[in-house]
Amino acid sequence: MSAKKLNVGVLGASGYTGADLVRLAACHPAMDIKVLTANAQAGKSMGDVFPHLAGLDLPDLIRAEDASWKGLDVVFCGLPHGTTQEIIASLPVDLKVVDMSADFRLREPETYAQWYGREHRATDLQKQAVYGLSEHYRDEIAGARLVACPGCYPTAVLMLLIPLVRGGLISAENLIIDAKSGVSGAGRGLKQNTLFCETGEGLSPYAVASHRHSPEIEQELSVAAGAPVLVNFTPHLIPMSRGEFITAYAALGDGVSAGDVRAALNTRYSQEPFVRVAPEGVVPATQHVRGSNFCLLGVFEDRLPGRVILMSTLDNLVKGSSGQAVQNMNLMFGLEETTALGQQPLFP
Amino acid sequence: MSAKKLNVGVLGASGYTGADLVRLAACHPAMDIKVLTANAQAGKSMGDVFPHLAGLDLPDLIRAEDASWKGLDVVFCGLPHGTTQEIIASLPVDLKVVDMSADFRLREPETYAQWYGREHRATDLQKQAVYGLSEHYRDEIAGARLVACPGCYPTAVLMLLIPLVRGGLISAENLIIDAKSGVSGAGRGLKQNTLFCETGEGLSPYAVASHRHSPEIEQELSVAAGAPVLVNFTPHLIPMSRGEFITAYAALGDGVSAGDVRAALNTRYSQEPFVRVAPEGVVPATQHVRGSNFCLLGVFEDRLPGRVILMSTLDNLVKGSSGQAVQNMNLMFGLEETTALGQQPLFP
Amino acid sequence: MSAKKLNVGVLGASGYTGADLVRLAACHPAMDIKVLTANAQAGKSMGDVFPHLAGLDLPDLIRAEDASWKGLDVVFCGLPHGTTQEIIASLPVDLKVVDMSADFRLREPETYAQWYGREHRATDLQKQAVYGLSEHYRDEIAGARLVACPGCYPTAVLMLLIPLVRGGLISAENLIIDAKSGVSGAGRGLKQNTLFCETGEGLSPYAVASHRHSPEIEQELSVAAGAPVLVNFTPHLIPMSRGEFITAYAALGDGVSAGDVRAALNTRYSQEPFVRVAPEGVVPATQHVRGSNFCLLGVFEDRLPGRVILMSTLDNLVKGSSGQAVQNMNLMFGLEETTALGQQPLFP
Amino acid sequence: MSAKKLNVGVLGASGYTGADLVRLAACHPAMDIKVLTANAQAGKSMGDVFPHLAGLDLPDLIRAEDASWKGLDVVFCGLPHGTTQEIIASLPVDLKVVDMSADFRLREPETYAQWYGREHRATDLQKQAVYGLSEHYRDEIAGARLVACPGCYPTAVLMLLIPLVRGGLISAENLIIDAKSGVSGAGRGLKQNTLFCETGEGLSPYAVASHRHSPEIEQELSVAAGAPVLVNFTPHLIPMSRGEFITAYAALGDGVSAGDVRAALNTRYSQEPFVRVAPEGVVPATQHVRGSNFCLLGVFEDRLPGRVILMSTLDNLVKGSSGQAVQNMNLMFGLEETTALGQQPLFP
Repeated sequence: MSAKKLNVGVLGASGYTGADLVRLAACHPAMDIKVLTANAQAGKSMGDVFPHLAGLDLPDLIRAEDASWKGLDVVFCGLPHGTTQEIIASLPVDLKVVDMSADFRLREPETYAQWYGREHRATDLQKQAVYGLSEHYRDEIAGARLVACPGCYPTAVLMLLIPLVRGGLISAENLIIDAKSGVSGAGRGLKQNTLFCETGEGLSPYAVASHRHSPEIEQELSVAAGAPVLVNFTPHLIPMSRGEFITAYAALGDGVSAGDVRAALNTRYSQEPFVRVAPEGVVPATQHVRGSNFCLLGVFEDRLPGRVILMSTLDNLVKGSSGQAVQNMNLMFGLEETTALGQQPLFP
Repeated sequence: MSAKKLNVGVLGASGYTGADLVRLAACHPAMDIKVLTANAQAGKSMGDVFPHLAGLDLPDLIRAEDASWKGLDVVFCGLPHGTTQEIIASLPVDLKVVDMSADFRLREPETYAQWYGREHRATDLQKQAVYGLSEHYRDEIAGARLVACPGCYPTAVLMLLIPLVRGGLISAENLIIDAKSGVSGAGRGLKQNTLFCETGEGLSPYAVASHRHSPEIEQELSVAAGAPVLVNFTPHLIPMSRGEFITAYAALGDGVSAGDVRAALNTRYSQEPFVRVAPEGVVPATQHVRGSNFCLLGVFEDRLPGRVILMSTLDNLVKGSSGQAVQNMNLMFGLEETTALGQQPLFP
Repeated sequence: MSAKKLNVGVLGASGYTGADLVRLAACHPAMDIKVLTANAQAGKSMGDVFPHLAGLDLPDLIRAEDASWKGLDVVFCGLPHGTTQEIIASLPVDLKVVDMSADFRLREPETYAQWYGREHRATDLQKQAVYGLSEHYRDEIAGARLVACPGCYPTAVLMLLIPLVRGGLISAENLIIDAKSGVSGAGRGLKQNTLFCETGEGLSPYAVASHRHSPEIEQELSVAAGAPVLVNFTPHLIPMSRGEFITAYAALGDGVSAGDVRAALNTRYSQEPFVRVAPEGVVPATQHVRGSNFCLLGVFEDRLPGRVILMSTLDNLVKGSSGQAVQNMNLMFGLEETTALGQQPLFP
Repeated sequence: MSAKKLNVGVLGASGYTGADLVRLAACHPAMDIKVLTANAQAGKSMGDVFPHLAGLDLPDLIRAEDASWKGLDVVFCGLPHGTTQEIIASLPVDLKVVDMSADFRLREPETYAQWYGREHRATDLQKQAVYGLSEHYRDEIAGARLVACPGCYPTAVLMLLIPLVRGGLISAENLIIDAKSGVSGAGRGLKQNTLFCETGEGLSPYAVASHRHSPEIEQELSVAAGAPVLVNFTPHLIPMSRGEFITAYAALGDGVSAGDVRAALNTRYSQEPFVRVAPEGVVPATQHVRGSNFCLLGVFEDRLPGRVILMSTLDNLVKGSSGQAVQNMNLMFGLEETTALGQQPLFP
C-alpha cells in the first residue's frame, strides 16, 4: 500500500460514470478525492445527488470553473462529449488526465467532426492522447499524460476482435456486431426512452448504422488489420441497468477453426487478470461480470460453414468506463494495475 | 357473429401458451371451451393453476386419457414435443387439430429425428399437416384438418424473410439471424435459468448454433428460395416476460436498395391486418406488439455496402403461438380471420 | 350492439391514461374517436407518440384550443390536475364529461385548495360532479353530466374498505394503508426518479404522509363511516410498469372475525362483474389483474388478536383509470356496463 | 493486515448466500477458503455452479460427509434449516461456527418446534448459540463459539425497532410490519413462484401471518421490551433480485415525537460504520444499499396523531446474511470489524 496518496479530481461527478468512479475510489488505498465538479448540481453534497454514496466523506460538488487544480495529481473527466476539450486544454500541463468522455478517442479530426457534428477544438491534445484500452496499450498508457478511455461498446468489441483481426484468424470484411446494452449506458439525463415504463419489459435497436462508437471500433480494427476496416454495429437497448453483450459474426480465416479462435484468445489473455475466455460450450452472460472489471469472451462454431460466432461481455460502467479508468490511472502512476478493482461480480 | 359455437378442447392447458389461448378464447364469440387437459394438474380448476383466469367459467383440468372428444369441433394442442404425436394420432379423424407443439412442423422425418432425437411416430399425419404460418399458407390452412403452428422464432423470421428471399431482394447465403426472446418462451416448467434471480438484470445467448427452430426456418426459406438454405440463428434470453425480436443481417440482391426491400414488404403485407412495416427511420420494439397478434417489421440500410439490416418483432405467446393458433382456427372454420384478435398492444 | 355510435373526444391523449383509453376504445363497438388533443404534441399522429397504436385509424393530435366540440357526445379528460377546470367549464353543457384528472374528486373547495395548492376555479361544476367509483355510485353516474373518476389508489382502497367501514366490520380508527404501485402511475413526464436505472431493481416509499390521494380516501370513508375518518396512507414505488397493491391493517369490529369480513365482501360484490374476492388462503397479486378492469380483494386473519389484514389489487391504468372511465361512460349512455372491458388479464 | 490467515469452510456453498459469502471472502485478506460443500453439486467446481466466481482459485465442491475439518478455524453454514443441527453438533468443538441457517436463532425449543414443525435435535448447542445481530450482541459474539446469524427480515426489523422499543419511544403493542423483499430471499431452489415470468412485473404478499421470521422478531423485541411482544409481520415479494424494505407503523410513546425517534436512532447508531439514519424528509430506498453491508433507517411523522412511520432497508444477501456473517467472524477472531465489508453500494 502506497504511503503517498494521489490527490484526485473528478469533472462531471453527477453522472453514473462519475458515481461509479467514486464508488471504486472509496476502496482505493491511494486515491484521495479532493475535487468533485457538476455544474448543474453545484452546491449539493454527493449524498444529495447519489444517496448510496452519502456515507462517504467527500467534498461538495462545485462548478468546474470554481475548482482549483493546485495540488491535484490526476483528474478524471466524465463530462459530455464536446464540453471536455476546452476544459482539458485549460488544465495545468503537469496534471494527468483520464478522460472518460468521447472527445479524445478518435485520432483523426475529420472523423471526429463527421461523427460529432463539430470541429475538434483541441487537436494538439488529440495527438498526445493515448487510447486507453488497458490490455492493448499498456505501455503507452503508463507514459501518457492524457488517456482517452474507450467507449463501453468499443472496449467489449475490441477486447474480442483485435487479437483475431491482427492474427488473421477472422476476416475483417463484413464483420457483423450485434450489441446489447443495459440502460445506464444512456446516462442519467432525462430522456423519454429511458423511463422505466418505456424500456421495461421490452427491447429495441437504436442508433442503427449511426452509432458514434462505430468509427472508434473501426479505427482500432483498422490498426489491427493494417488496412481500413468497416463494420456493421447495431446496438439494442435491453431492460437491465448494467451490462453489455456483444455477439459478433465473422468469416474464419482460411483453415481456421472455432477452436483455433478460442485458443488464440486464451493465449493472448492468459496473463490478464481482468479477461477470461469461457470454456468450450459455456455461454458468457452479463450477469457473470456485473459490478466487476472483468471482460468475458466466448467462441462458438457457426452452422454456416467457415464462419464463427464470437461473444464478449462486460459491465459498461466498470470495465466499460470507470473501472478501466482506474486501471489506467494505476498504470499511469506505477501502482499495481489491479488496485481497487478486485471486487467480484455481484450475482444475483 | 356465428350463431353456431365451436366446441373446443385444449390439450396441455397448464402452460403459458395454454393460458394465453384460454385468455383469447374468452373474447371469442364462437369458442366454447369444453375440455381442458393437463396431466400433472388434473383435478384442479384453471383458476387454481392460473389465478388470473379464475373469473372464467371453465371446465376443470383433466388427464388427456380421461377426455371425451365426442362433440368437439376442434382441439388445440399445447403439449411438449414428442408427446403430441400419439395423442393426435388417436383423435377422431373428423376432429380438426391446431397443434402448437413442434411435432408436425418439419416435413422430413429424418430432419425431425435428427433435431428431436427420436423417430417420428406419426409420419402419415406429418404428411397431411399444413404449416400454419397464416399469412403465407392461408388457403392450405383453410382446407386442413391438422395445422402445425410455427414456432415463435420461425414466425417472426419467416414473416420477414420469406418475401425477400422469394423475390431475390436479399441473398439467401450467409443469413445472420440474431434473435432475442423474453423468458416466457422457455415455458412454465422449473428450470434454474428461468428463475427471476438468474435471468433478471442480465442477458445471455442460449442454444447457440443448435436451436430446434433452425431447421424449421431453413425448411421454409428453402421453399422460398427454391434451393437449400442454411442460416445462422443465434437466440438470446432477455429479462422480460413476453416479446421476441429478430435482427437479421443480409447481403442485398444485385442493384437492390434498402428502400426496395422496405417497399417489397409494404407491398406484400399491405392488406394484412396483423402485419405492419415501420416507416423509414422508425425502429420496431417489442413493446409495440406486446399482448397483441401483430408482427412489426423494419428495414435499415447497413454501413457495409451492399448489405441490409432487417427487423421483426412479435409477442411470442400471441402471434408466436396462441394468437396465430386462433387465427388458423378462424381460417379452418370459415370465420372472420381477425375474430378475437383485435386487442391492441398493452403498453406500457 | 348499439347502432348509434358515440362521438368521442380525448383531452390529453399523450399520457399513459390517454393511450390506454384509446386502446380500450379500439375494441368498443360504440366509441368513435373524433378528437384527440395534446398540446405539446400537436400536429403529430397518435402513432408518432405511441407506436403501439400506429395501426389504428385515428385523428391527429391537436391543441385543445383548436378542437371543435360540435357533434361530440362525450369527452374524456386526461389532463394534469389544475389545468382541467377551465377547459371543462368551457365545454358545451350538453357534452358529457368523464374526467380522469384529480380536479373534481374532492367535494370541499377548501380541501382541494389545501392539497393542490391553489383555489378551485370551477366550484359550481365541482358541486355537480359525481364521484365515479362505478360499483358504489352507479345510479348517480348513470344520471351525471360530469363524472370525476377516482384516483387509482382510492379506487383500490375504497373498493376494499367502503363496505367494511359502512358495515362496521372494521374500525375506521387508525387504518393503516400500505400501498405499492407500478411506475406508470407517475405518468410519462420526464422525472429522474422514474428513469429505468433509478427505479429498476429497487423500491422506496414516496409522498409519505403527504400523498394527494389521502384526502380523497378520507372523504369517501367518512361518508361510509358517517363520521370523519383519517387514515395512514403510505405509497411505495415498485419496479414494474402496471399494477397497484393495497395492504391494509385494521382493527376488527367487536365480535367480528376475518371470515366475517370475507363473507361481507363476497356478499357485497357477488353480482359485480369486475370484482372478485380471493378464497381463504389465496393471496391476490397484481399479475392476476394486469391489463384488465378487475379488482381483486383478499382477507387474512392477523396474528395480532382482534385485527385483520386486507388486500386489494388492480391495474392502475385500467380499473384505476381508463377502464373505469369507459365503465362510467357505458353507464352514462345506458350501454352494457361491461362493453369493451372483457379483456382477461395478460399473464405472464 | 493479519499475517495469520484463517482456514475457512463453507457448508452449503451452492446457494445464493454461499455464493455471496465467497464473493466477500475473495476480498478478505484473512480468509482462506479450504472447504466448500454442496451435496447435490459435489464434484463440480464453484465456477460450474456460479460462473461469476469462475475466476477465483477455490476448492471443488464436495459432500459435507467427505469434508475434513482438520486445520479449519471457522465454518460458515448456509444449509437449509433442519439439516444444520446434526452437522454442527458433529463438528470438532474447537471449530468456530457462523450459522446462517435458521436452526439456532430461536432460544426456546418449543418455539422452534412450533414454527419449524419438528423437534430441535441439538438443544445443548441451541443454549450456547449467540444471536448474531452484530450491533446489538457485539460482546457476546466476540466470545462465542457458535453464532446464529439473524434472518434477513429480523435484521432489518430489529436494527430499527430494538432501540425504540427498549427506550419506550414507541409502543410495543400492535406493531405493524409491512415487509418487502427481492426474490433472492427465496433462494436458488426451483419453485414456480420465483420463475421470472411469475414474479416479474408484479407483486404479492406471501406467508401472510405465518412467516417463520415472526417468532424471531418477537423473541428479540420481547427482550427489548422486557415483556412478551407480538407483531404483525406481512412480507411481500417484489420484482427485484436483492434488497429488503421494512415499513413499520407504530404508536408513539407518551409525549414522544417523530423527531425524538429519529434523534434516538441517530444517537444509538452514530458510531456504527454500517448503520445510517436518513435525514428528515429523505426516504430510504433499497437501491441505496444494494450489494453493501449497510442498513439505512428512516423516520416519518404519520398523519394519524400519535403515530409514526418507520423504515429500514438492507441488502438481504449482505447485511441480511453473508455480510453480517463475515462481520461476526471478524468479531469472533478479533479482526477489524469492517474488514472486507467496505464495498459501497452498487447503483445503478
